[in-house]
Amino acid sequence: MAVYTHLSAEDLSDLIGQYDVGELVSAKGIAEGVSNSNWLIETAGGEAGSRFILTMYERHIDLADLPFFLDLLDHLAARGCPVPRTIHDRSGAASRKIGGKTVALIEFLPGLSVDAPTPAQARSAGEALAGMHLASRDYGGRRANTLGPAGVAALFDSCEGRLGEIDPALPALVADHMPKLAGNWPDTLPQGIAHTDLFPDNVLVEGDRVNAMIDFYFACHETLAYDLATTHLAWSFERGTGQFRPDVGRALVEGYETVRPLSDEERAALPFLAKAAALRFIATRSYDWLFTPADALVTRKDPMEFVQRLLFYDEAGPKAFA
Amino acid sequence: MAVYTHLSAEDLSDLIGQYDVGELVSAKGIAEGVSNSNWLIETAGGEAGSRFILTMYERHIDLADLPFFLDLLDHLAARGCPVPRTIHDRSGAASRKIGGKTVALIEFLPGLSVDAPTPAQARSAGEALAGMHLASRDYGGRRANTLGPAGVAALFDSCEGRLGEIDPALPALVADHMPKLAGNWPDTLPQGIAHTDLFPDNVLVEGDRVNAMIDFYFACHETLAYDLATTHLAWSFERGTGQFRPDVGRALVEGYETVRPLSDEERAALPFLAKAAALRFIATRSYDWLFTPADALVTRKDPMEFVQRLLFYDEAGPKAFA
Repeated sequence: MAVYTHLSAEDLSDLIGQYDVGELVSAKGIAEGVSNSNWLIETAGGEAGSRFILTMYERHIDLADLPFFLDLLDHLAARGCPVPRTIHDRSGAASRKIGGKTVALIEFLPGLSVDAPTPAQARSAGEALAGMHLASRDYGGRRANTLGPAGVAALFDSCEGRLGEIDPALPALVADHMPKLAGNWPDTLPQGIAHTDLFPDNVLVEGDRVNAMIDFYFACHETLAYDLATTHLAWSFERGTGQFRPDVGRALVEGYETVRPLSDEERAALPFLAKAAALRFIATRSYDWLFTPADALVTRKDPMEFVQRLLFYDEAGPKAFA
Repeated sequence: MAVYTHLSAEDLSDLIGQYDVGELVSAKGIAEGVSNSNWLIETAGGEAGSRFILTMYERHIDLADLPFFLDLLDHLAARGCPVPRTIHDRSGAASRKIGGKTVALIEFLPGLSVDAPTPAQARSAGEALAGMHLASRDYGGRRANTLGPAGVAALFDSCEGRLGEIDPALPALVADHMPKLAGNWPDTLPQGIAHTDLFPDNVLVEGDRVNAMIDFYFACHETLAYDLATTHLAWSFERGTGQFRPDVGRALVEGYETVRPLSDEERAALPFLAKAAALRFIATRSYDWLFTPADALVTRKDPMEFVQRLLFYDEAGPKAFA
């Protein structure tokens, strides 16, 4: 959580001058995102609103995918989804270069990221997620999920047998669960554009209502029920204790189904898909845990938190979604 | 530059509810300040404006000094100085506790911190600094400068003979210049409330005009001409190259004198005071360089940058202010 690159006020003013948004009057580097630098930008005298998030893509993101992410925001916003629009520059471009790095200007939407979502907030998030799944059906962009079963397996391989350094129980657990994932993916379920990372920090709420879904940089073509299972995994456990919150999980799925009802096959697949999602976060967090330099400006997240959730879904089965 | 403490949206909403500023609708951790956590806060439905900076005092600051800093902002703002007001809670308190830590809510003022100030901006900064010196004459609070000559000497002592690890030339340079500082302070010059850290990053400009002076956490009772000399040291050298910018320095002093003309004694003391200020920053940066853990979330600043400036003032003498 940091700003990795210094941009002077002069650089920022020149950059903002390339957009039809008025003059730059304030720019604060914000402590959000682990792989990008972000500034909260304020302008005066423009037509397109006065506050924006400027994102500089530092690493992790394949820039070839950027048009997929940025155009998706426009596509969804135009269809009434609560997502920020991409602001285009005077030449119509969705991204620009500054000092050799790529930046994009995104609409600022107010709202708070809650740590302990209420059932009402989870219901609104489920509705927003389903609305996004429907609204993206005619989106032309394509991006494969690089963190599907094969990507997750490759990440565990990259950990080079060092998972035991994180926790002595982790190697056996991964050896037990990964083979169940491989080859068993429910390929016949409906696919579409999935967010795949809709944690409460990527949702801004105003009271009970979702005002924005943000950070679409893992969005991809994927099984839609997997996106719901991922969101269930991300929302339904108490921060700190890890305790399952059935009321929150239930409200999320109910909210989702008011907009896009699940088929029986999708519902039956949810426990499998939630475990697949847990393995995805165990894999990325394990890799980051082992290979993030100690002096990096980011806080390492504990992979074992998701081991606990994986074991919960494994034991509860369909009851986790009842 | 980081947010050191996690405050949940729930914590923040409760906290903001203690002030008469409306409901919290957005909170972004901002990457500013090296010793405090800061959030840019937005509210709706309040009377006292809608944007604020929430500061959590993490370390470095003696909390006994906090009323001095916070009341000073109110004192100066009430006299038309461009500084943010302190927002008081419903009980009238200027600071509160949350999770054992002290926080204060400060007015947000727009503006940009420039890297390469123009002469016009330096002139406006000089005017604002002098205006602050005049407006604080009837301020009742008192705080001694902990980074005067004795404090600077103590900091160099704390470096335990390790200055040579920073640069082989540094020990001899400090041994040469520190004795000239001790005992030669011009005690007869006018004193008052000084900012003592008015670098361009602590000034927010809109075009040529200073819209805010911020970060008063080094403010103290001090020789006023020392504050001007410190600001000259902070503004008149090009970032990167360290090249002296006489036009900027001259505009700063001229702007200052349009509001508060210097006496001949004050003018004559400026080179000495600028060297004293350079030693102060060499001392704090050296200490931080040697004792900041490598994994700290802050970027260490090079002390040698101020050695270069010290040598410049030593050689140029009064010509630096001509």
